[in-house]
Amino acid sequence: MKAVILLSGGLDSSTVLYQARADGCECYAISFDYQQRHQRELQSARLIAQAFGVAKHQVVNFDLRLWGGSALTDNAIALPQERSLDEMSQNIPVTYVPARNTIFLSFALGYAETIGAQRVYIGVNALDYSGYPDCRLDYIQAMQEVFRLGTKQGREGQPIAIVAPLINLKKTEIIQLGNQLGVPWELTWSCYAGGDVACGVCDSCRLRLAAFAELGLNDLVPYA
Amino acid sequence: MKAVILLSGGLDSSTVLYQARADGCECYAISFDYQQRHQRELQSARLIAQAFGVAKHQVVNFDLRLWGGSALTDNAIALPQERSLDEMSQNIPVTYVPARNTIFLSFALGYAETIGAQRVYIGVNALDYSGYPDCRLDYIQAMQEVFRLGTKQGREGQPIAIVAPLINLKKTEIIQLGNQLGVPWELTWSCYAGGDVACGVCDSCRLRLAAFAELGLNDLVPYA
Repeated sequence: MKAVILLSGGLDSSTVLYQARADGCECYAISFDYQQRHQRELQSARLIAQAFGVAKHQVVNFDLRLWGGSALTDNAIALPQERSLDEMSQNIPVTYVPARNTIFLSFALGYAETIGAQRVYIGVNALDYSGYPDCRLDYIQAMQEVFRLGTKQGREGQPIAIVAPLINLKKTEIIQLGNQLGVPWELTWSCYAGGDVACGVCDSCRLRLAAFAELGLNDLVPYA
Repeated sequence: MKAVILLSGGLDSSTVLYQARADGCECYAISFDYQQRHQRELQSARLIAQAFGVAKHQVVNFDLRLWGGSALTDNAIALPQERSLDEMSQNIPVTYVPARNTIFLSFALGYAETIGAQRVYIGVNALDYSGYPDCRLDYIQAMQEVFRLGTKQGREGQPIAIVAPLINLKKTEIIQLGNQLGVPWELTWSCYAGGDVACGVCDSCRLRLAAFAELGLNDLVPYA
């Protein structure tokens, strides 16, 4: 069974890639260069895809800086720093990129239908502190309907399934799962800041560091 | 009220652009260079956007030839020619591009939320002969749910509405509507074939020509 895996190069999507293989899938990875501030993550995506041995790794290019609207696609919007997990949980943060997962899943759907894949894997996580609207279960269910009705495969009674194995896991549980699956954490990239080493103070770094610390594990990614 | 209009440069989307203004909207157009066989349509989209006087015209670039899967994105797949309207109505044709409208609507959603638009207009048409799955009402309704659940605006109770004013119109009715609205047909482009003049024999040309003929109107676009 073929599956398309959305691979950002981060901790969550890398775990999902390994999970897809554990589920018996032949894995086709897809990543997006959308001119994100942290393009460094694409280098990680490539390294992970290579280390894993995907059947194919597609990198789709487009430019969400055309209209910006997020701290990840507009350098004029400051990246939140040194926020506590409590602060992160208050509101949808400025790192929210309008419609990002919808765009990603749409491309994954087109790719999946073209290669005859039966599944699309995505590493969304409703329990992290970001509150992104397009990481929640009801959103994924709505996209599943789009997958069913918007494709030839779906209309013929064989819709491509969206699989979101991390949706109800905490970050520590994701790391425990990844450890069982052998995910090479040192190749992954979570930092939003766009530097050559992880900043350690953006929301994404702080979530990651807190989870590794809670588990008493070393994070081998270099930090500033 | 701001609206984002999906503008391919064809007859349907051009009519929708003019309809949006008639509905009282300030119009932001969005077009897609996806390395389609008929990139000529983008020239039409630009001319129409200019003639109309849109507030802004975004052209998003990406490459669906990465995986192909359609006669419009893979030159090795022959374009159907000289088919009757009856033949066109039999099956989903090879000009179907997997997930195309889902990709288009996703970008339109991101743009709309960023500029604070309340509507996204799309010129889909369930009654034409193509049978594309992503042109039908139930699909549009499923995308509407994604618009509601996948965005900050939607989660805050102000979902961006998808408006599909042509969905139940026949091609002749669309032309009649466009005539009332003053759409400059001579600037539009429907042909799939990728030439400098319209081929006259692809499905898209034949649908267009049949509708103009039925109405006793001249189509001023040059044909081979």
